[in-house]
Amino acid sequence: MSQPRTSVTSRLPLRLAGVTVPTGCAAGWAPQAPSPRKDIRDCSADPLYLPPTATNTSVRLAALRGVMRTQGTHAYIVPSTDAHMSEYISERDARLGWLTGFSGSAGTAVVTQDKATLWTDSRYWTQAERELDCNWELQRTTSIESIGMWILKEVPVGGNVTLDPFLFSIDTWNSYSRALHGSGRTLLPLETNLVDQAWGDQRPLPSSSEIYSLPAEFTGSSWQEKVAGIRQQMEEHSRRPTAVLLSGLEETAWLFNLRGDDIPYNPVFYSYTLLTNTTISLFMDESRLSAVARASLLSGCPGLLCVELQEYGQVSAHLRRYTQDNVTVWLGTEYTTYGLYSIIPQEKLLEENYSPVMTAKAVKNAHEQEMLRAAHVRDAVAVIQYLLWLEKTVPQGQVDEFSGAQHIDALRWAQEHSRGPSFQSISASGLNAALAHYSPSNGSSRALSVREMYLFDTGGQYLDGTTDITRTVHWSEPTPLQKEAYTRVLMGNIDLSRLVFPSNTAGRNVESFARRALWNVGLNYGHGTGHGIGNFLSVHEWPVGFQSNNVPLEAGMFTSIEPGYYRDGEFGIRIEDVALVVEAQTEHQSEETFLTFEVVSLVPYDRKLIDLSLLSPEQIQYLNSYYEKIRAQVGPELRRQRLEEEYAWLQESTEPFPLSSARTVALAPLALAPLLSVLLSGLGA
Amino acid sequence: MSQPRTSVTSRLPLRLAGVTVPTGCAAGWAPQAPSPRKDIRDCSADPLYLPPTATNTSVRLAALRGVMRTQGTHAYIVPSTDAHMSEYISERDARLGWLTGFSGSAGTAVVTQDKATLWTDSRYWTQAERELDCNWELQRTTSIESIGMWILKEVPVGGNVTLDPFLFSIDTWNSYSRALHGSGRTLLPLETNLVDQAWGDQRPLPSSSEIYSLPAEFTGSSWQEKVAGIRQQMEEHSRRPTAVLLSGLEETAWLFNLRGDDIPYNPVFYSYTLLTNTTISLFMDESRLSAVARASLLSGCPGLLCVELQEYGQVSAHLRRYTQDNVTVWLGTEYTTYGLYSIIPQEKLLEENYSPVMTAKAVKNAHEQEMLRAAHVRDAVAVIQYLLWLEKTVPQGQVDEFSGAQHIDALRWAQEHSRGPSFQSISASGLNAALAHYSPSNGSSRALSVREMYLFDTGGQYLDGTTDITRTVHWSEPTPLQKEAYTRVLMGNIDLSRLVFPSNTAGRNVESFARRALWNVGLNYGHGTGHGIGNFLSVHEWPVGFQSNNVPLEAGMFTSIEPGYYRDGEFGIRIEDVALVVEAQTEHQSEETFLTFEVVSLVPYDRKLIDLSLLSPEQIQYLNSYYEKIRAQVGPELRRQRLEEEYAWLQESTEPFPLSSARTVALAPLALAPLLSVLLSGLGA
Repeated sequence: MSQPRTSVTSRLPLRLAGVTVPTGCAAGWAPQAPSPRKDIRDCSADPLYLPPTATNTSVRLAALRGVMRTQGTHAYIVPSTDAHMSEYISERDARLGWLTGFSGSAGTAVVTQDKATLWTDSRYWTQAERELDCNWELQRTTSIESIGMWILKEVPVGGNVTLDPFLFSIDTWNSYSRALHGSGRTLLPLETNLVDQAWGDQRPLPSSSEIYSLPAEFTGSSWQEKVAGIRQQMEEHSRRPTAVLLSGLEETAWLFNLRGDDIPYNPVFYSYTLLTNTTISLFMDESRLSAVARASLLSGCPGLLCVELQEYGQVSAHLRRYTQDNVTVWLGTEYTTYGLYSIIPQEKLLEENYSPVMTAKAVKNAHEQEMLRAAHVRDAVAVIQYLLWLEKTVPQGQVDEFSGAQHIDALRWAQEHSRGPSFQSISASGLNAALAHYSPSNGSSRALSVREMYLFDTGGQYLDGTTDITRTVHWSEPTPLQKEAYTRVLMGNIDLSRLVFPSNTAGRNVESFARRALWNVGLNYGHGTGHGIGNFLSVHEWPVGFQSNNVPLEAGMFTSIEPGYYRDGEFGIRIEDVALVVEAQTEHQSEETFLTFEVVSLVPYDRKLIDLSLLSPEQIQYLNSYYEKIRAQVGPELRRQRLEEEYAWLQESTEPFPLSSARTVALAPLALAPLLSVLLSGLGA
Repeated sequence: MSQPRTSVTSRLPLRLAGVTVPTGCAAGWAPQAPSPRKDIRDCSADPLYLPPTATNTSVRLAALRGVMRTQGTHAYIVPSTDAHMSEYISERDARLGWLTGFSGSAGTAVVTQDKATLWTDSRYWTQAERELDCNWELQRTTSIESIGMWILKEVPVGGNVTLDPFLFSIDTWNSYSRALHGSGRTLLPLETNLVDQAWGDQRPLPSSSEIYSLPAEFTGSSWQEKVAGIRQQMEEHSRRPTAVLLSGLEETAWLFNLRGDDIPYNPVFYSYTLLTNTTISLFMDESRLSAVARASLLSGCPGLLCVELQEYGQVSAHLRRYTQDNVTVWLGTEYTTYGLYSIIPQEKLLEENYSPVMTAKAVKNAHEQEMLRAAHVRDAVAVIQYLLWLEKTVPQGQVDEFSGAQHIDALRWAQEHSRGPSFQSISASGLNAALAHYSPSNGSSRALSVREMYLFDTGGQYLDGTTDITRTVHWSEPTPLQKEAYTRVLMGNIDLSRLVFPSNTAGRNVESFARRALWNVGLNYGHGTGHGIGNFLSVHEWPVGFQSNNVPLEAGMFTSIEPGYYRDGEFGIRIEDVALVVEAQTEHQSEETFLTFEVVSLVPYDRKLIDLSLLSPEQIQYLNSYYEKIRAQVGPELRRQRLEEEYAWLQESTEPFPLSSARTVALAPLALAPLLSVLLSGLGA
């Protein structure tokens, strides 16, 4: 969940860089290649050419335009988020996809009576040309400034521009507001969603599956303890808030130790919570609660720890009533919608980037840490099984990206406490791996080959934790550039993993350590370096990570560390591990606490791709001790699961590297000379 | 100049960390040491004890309170800035100092009819206890939240809280506004400054010295070229601003190639500029212009390049008139006062952190780069003379911190194009160097001694550039900790200086490279890592540097690189160089441009303090090539100035370090073993 989706929709943490690319053509798309491609639309051809992957949106657009006319709206803005700013959304919330045919996870559409335009970023340009029909113009940027300028061109002075305020973050609303300010066009929030009206009874129904309590063995603390902790933070805050408003789905799921399956890959359910100093209101479909869950929530009734169950749709009305009194509501502005936010009078708001639930959830207690560690040991077993299976089957030419992804998903499902993948598996061979967000589909999947590098970025949901790991492998001879790039990506992973830094350091201030080995020779990668991760919750868990809007690193936080390198049309490399932030033991003591990372992903790297002569002795030492840890922790689990062949593979793959192979700089001969002469003279030579 | 002063007042770039320390006692100061100290006030003693350094402020406070009563003001807030958010201020603007007796550069006072309180940060707590009398309470924090809470306690509901809006940044005004919002107290901007009224005819007069044009040989381009460049940026901006408002003193000085001496150490003069697409209004005391300067400014009249000279005090009225039309005014919100800002209607504002003049000034052109390099060569001569002089005179016990500072100032004055120091010289021996902002005074100056480390942080103004350098030295045997800490500070300086990074990287994202060697063993420093520097302008030139509000690094920018380590009550270390951002040559090419630093400060480090065994071979290689450069560039200048003894000292001090001394890790023996056996067997041993 969380955050303006532009920053988290990809599997990779995007860098917050302004993508400013010239916009597409107004009348339609013109092919650039000499021979026309058949996989993308050609709206300048006569007749128009549409590939089979495109959706005919004429009827849908007509329906929306009809609704717009009844509302007197000149332009309607449709985003890709849901009312909780979730990273993944349910089918029911895929309004942008339904309206446009475009299935990418990030984009914005604006529709007027005679135009329809989609804005999306470079990851999705080709996909959009495959999926859009010629009703749609494609704009190759996502800047709200560009959307605003388009609106100013298309909407006459005096016109109304409308949107559903429950689908926009506060920041995004403000940006649109600024873009149209003083222009004579009015930006209006409309509580009725016009796409939903057009969608009508074709819109998927809400989930009806059970919402359940996590057994105590899989929680870090009881929900009553968590509520008490948050209330204590409220009391200790200088502004003395009377309530905390939770609109992130992870927030409510974490607070009450409840889970559901409303969103793919994320075990959460539609909900809001208003936790006050005396009451607890949980807005959800209570008919879906398991008996155990209901009993747990009501066990403290009446009293301070009694959960009042209310209808999901009642949150606005309830909040409106609550804020008529002399109250102060604390909320996280990074992921609360403008719709909810605007209900609360300004002077009754306590705005921080993240709610106290988000920040409390980010720091895992000892039991939660143990669970995540344990989940990663079993996860490593599945990944090691997969690596061995690939080694044996790829040379026979029987595996493609899609069947590979299916296989690792199946291996994870076989592990104890598994609840399926934590995101859509990325399985990318050769040049496909250069597209950082690539996922294969059954129809278009590249065969894995010993002649190409293969990257897989996958993870699992387990009752005791969520995992996320990327390995890149080659089954024969990598090119010198592939080997150098892989080694430098690994050096970056190592340098950040072994860094010692003061507590309260922001991730963005240290993420360059993961880049330096690449920078040194003029290489780099275009995505972020890592993200937080949940305990059987989201695989991208805010607010931890290395981006500018992440909170400072603290002991007990988990984050991924995932540098990469991508060469367009050739190959892609990424090495991703999950690490726990722990206290470091340093030679000198001071008032400051120092931290470092403990890597909990436990899968060896591809030896064939490592050029040891680029590594410093310290880096090799680090690798060897990491491999020792893998042997010690994963070895016994492989044996317990009677995976003897995998055990042998692990032993072989974690053989210590010789320190003598390390980088010795051009100066080793010089440095050795005096030492040698001493030694030689000692030998009487 | 520039920026909320809390972030730049010290000689060092402060880190933007929230200092939250319990506040002082309300009734007065209570000594903590068993025997009463005589250098600080004791307001709980009977009779009150005041040291001779304290100022009696009773009459001043009575005068201010009288003025406050006539204005119906319950609390008056007095900051330490001037109307240009300057880092250094003139005596005439030292309102806080006059009112309180406190001479520190950062603080805020609030006065009511019966209370008077000063807020300042930890650098100044002892100084405040020395200088305040018992009319004043000291609050040991600078958070506006704390000031706000104090005001809420002392000012009744319905009361007026006032301030001079031309002395507060937009941000600071907003913070006060938030702190008092909804509290029943009213925050009112008062155009008349009440301290000035109380100060009356005792207030120093404005400077009357000449304001002059820089000769063409000392400018990077003519003022007409600069104006044309800014106007072009206005045209190319999507908001199409019609004017740029310059309120930073450096902005006007740079734009018109004018200099003055209104502010200590900074060759600027009181001024504002409103540059529109058709006119140029320069607000200043035109009677002080040199004939050459006046002729230059008026040479394009009438026309687009004609400067209209207007009275300094007319800027508000002019701006009010100008913004009645259909205009858009571009300004830098980081350093424009709320008073000026609030004149412009919101919809006519183009707000960016920095004006286009600030960002244009930050990137030096080829001639400006050459000038700064040349100034640093002559500056190195003065510093080398000083180091040699110290070596000879300190052992005789004749030098103290103050006379040392005087000596290096004199050596700089003797260099060509010198215009004096670029800031008050920091000259700190032993434990005094642990106070990062320490400057000695004639009365209280510690003797330099061969038993202590000595830190000096000094710089010069030259017609062709501004310099800033810190060296730390020891004339006999440093302790192991001193040597280790110095070496690690040096390693940080080297690691950042030799870093290769993509263009548009923000300084804050790489400054940790200057800290890692310290972090590794649990050490750190509490200030920023560097700041921009001007061409015969401010020694702290925004917006370049390594802090969160600095702009991304670009080729042509100059910044200091200055890691340190400070041990309370014992010693302090800082190693500061100025470096130019240049394009890097990398092994691989990509679309991204890569940058690195070219260090232009050219003074060797103290060999006695370097533990070579901590350095990597790469770091030693870097040091040796830096020393080669010093020899090549400073050696000839020393000879030209017939400083033969200094020349010999330089040769000796820049002898290459043996690479064989570098860190070989605990693993060198292991790594050597196979090599040795090969060699030995080859020898038939």
